[in-house]
Amino acid sequence: MSGVPLFDRVALIGIGLIGSSVARVMRRDGLAGTIVACARTEATLETVRELGLADDISTDPAAAARDADLVMICTPVSTYAAIADRIAPALKSGAIVTDVGSVKAAILDDVLSRLPPDVHFVPGHPIAGTEMSGPEAGFETLFEDRWFLITPQPGCDPAAVERVAEFWRRAGSQIDVLDPEHHDQVLAITSHLPHLIAYTIVGTANDLEDHIKSEVIKYSASGFRDFTRIAGSDPIMWRDVFLANREAVLEMLGRLWEDLAILQRAIRVGDGETLEAFFRRTREIRRGVIEAGQHVPPAPPDQDQQ
Amino acid sequence: MSGVPLFDRVALIGIGLIGSSVARVMRRDGLAGTIVACARTEATLETVRELGLADDISTDPAAAARDADLVMICTPVSTYAAIADRIAPALKSGAIVTDVGSVKAAILDDVLSRLPPDVHFVPGHPIAGTEMSGPEAGFETLFEDRWFLITPQPGCDPAAVERVAEFWRRAGSQIDVLDPEHHDQVLAITSHLPHLIAYTIVGTANDLEDHIKSEVIKYSASGFRDFTRIAGSDPIMWRDVFLANREAVLEMLGRLWEDLAILQRAIRVGDGETLEAFFRRTREIRRGVIEAGQHVPPAPPDQDQQ
Repeated sequence: MSGVPLFDRVALIGIGLIGSSVARVMRRDGLAGTIVACARTEATLETVRELGLADDISTDPAAAARDADLVMICTPVSTYAAIADRIAPALKSGAIVTDVGSVKAAILDDVLSRLPPDVHFVPGHPIAGTEMSGPEAGFETLFEDRWFLITPQPGCDPAAVERVAEFWRRAGSQIDVLDPEHHDQVLAITSHLPHLIAYTIVGTANDLEDHIKSEVIKYSASGFRDFTRIAGSDPIMWRDVFLANREAVLEMLGRLWEDLAILQRAIRVGDGETLEAFFRRTREIRRGVIEAGQHVPPAPPDQDQQ
Repeated sequence: MSGVPLFDRVALIGIGLIGSSVARVMRRDGLAGTIVACARTEATLETVRELGLADDISTDPAAAARDADLVMICTPVSTYAAIADRIAPALKSGAIVTDVGSVKAAILDDVLSRLPPDVHFVPGHPIAGTEMSGPEAGFETLFEDRWFLITPQPGCDPAAVERVAEFWRRAGSQIDVLDPEHHDQVLAITSHLPHLIAYTIVGTANDLEDHIKSEVIKYSASGFRDFTRIAGSDPIMWRDVFLANREAVLEMLGRLWEDLAILQRAIRVGDGETLEAFFRRTREIRRGVIEAGQHVPPAPPDQDQQ
């Protein structure tokens, strides 16, 4: 469906999996008068041009953000402070700046303290993604039936929040508002810790003796396959997530160590009752996830080829 | 396609996800003259009857195995010794006994020492599965493009091995022969450890304060969802796997602790270089898995409803 643009001019700072999926939704539904895409490299922008994802492109965040009604930061969170410094002088009064980062508390001050007071910052996070990266990895249905979490600071303009929320509703998401610290705790266990563990276990496999390693890859069905998929995610993005959400990740990791030690001991001493009881409890959580409708992974049209 | 039966009479001892998928393949291709299904409960056998998976049913392994040309044990590995004791007197001379268990070294003696000398034991393991259990969870394409690993003991009859292999080829699998200890090491890292970790992390989430736990389920997309799926697997089957493959699992778990400690420290001290380098290395393994064609999960027709 095509309609009245929600925003005259949109700047996407970073146009990888998330940024390019946002561009695709905006294109499909006519939600932006003009889309300007900003990337660090000319090669990425050339891909953006070939895919027809933007009306204008630039490697300069300030040039991209100039006169924009909406600036969406879609880069790894370690870049936020520098980007805010660059775009601040170019932003027009009343512009809305938002983001899609997986960590919220740590980035708030990085951005807010650098933006002019007549600009609205609306921190946000779409709970959606795949392990693929780059502008060719995006697809327009990525956000459908997923959550978009907004973590507004005190004094955040409700009208600006509503305009950002409206875009994400058009993309098919449900909106929730969370406190940033609370967001970061929840994401530490649902997303950050699973990624850390998947990276670890695939790394452990990578260090095995060669004659085992080749067979690990060959027979990777059942369990390990899912871990390699998660561990194929963007290294820079995830480095930044762990550094920015250090406290919550270490807290959840501490709890994980304790639980793993219990299971390790049960295996060592042959305590089948403890193992079985533990494994039965976790089925309950799976049922909750299915009831919440979050159990089906996002699937781009050509998923089988990835 | 329907053809000449490979076996006149097949006994499936245990008819859950794997056993019922085997029955479906045999039905589809006419590979068994008669299929007898054995389960512990009448309720399971009633489901087998409704699904039309077998010609005959019994709760008694000996009755099911009597006069069978092929007896396939598809139950948790802790039951093998008792099943071998039960079926031994009923087996006809020249019968083939095989299994589908995820652990091979530990079960060999449990079965071999209990069977008559004129019976052939061919230990095997299809590297295929889903997190679902029970006869209704099986499907006939489960084994297509997957590996079936045979771990024959010295003196194992080549003709018996070949007859078992032929069934699995008809099911769509590729066959490989492995040493049992080597099989158990490889599976410890590709399957057993990922399951242990998934159970652990979902258990850790289960113990969180209620106000976080409800949101963990609500926003479970991206990472955690995959873990809850794996941790929804059959508790008894997995209890038995960890107890039977204790040594290899503890060895791999020890390596995992070390790697996780390195990443934990990097997060704590803010060492982004170590994190990024680690995360880049793991991408290599993912590429290997994709090249080996093991990256696409098995999908029953109604996967979206599970």
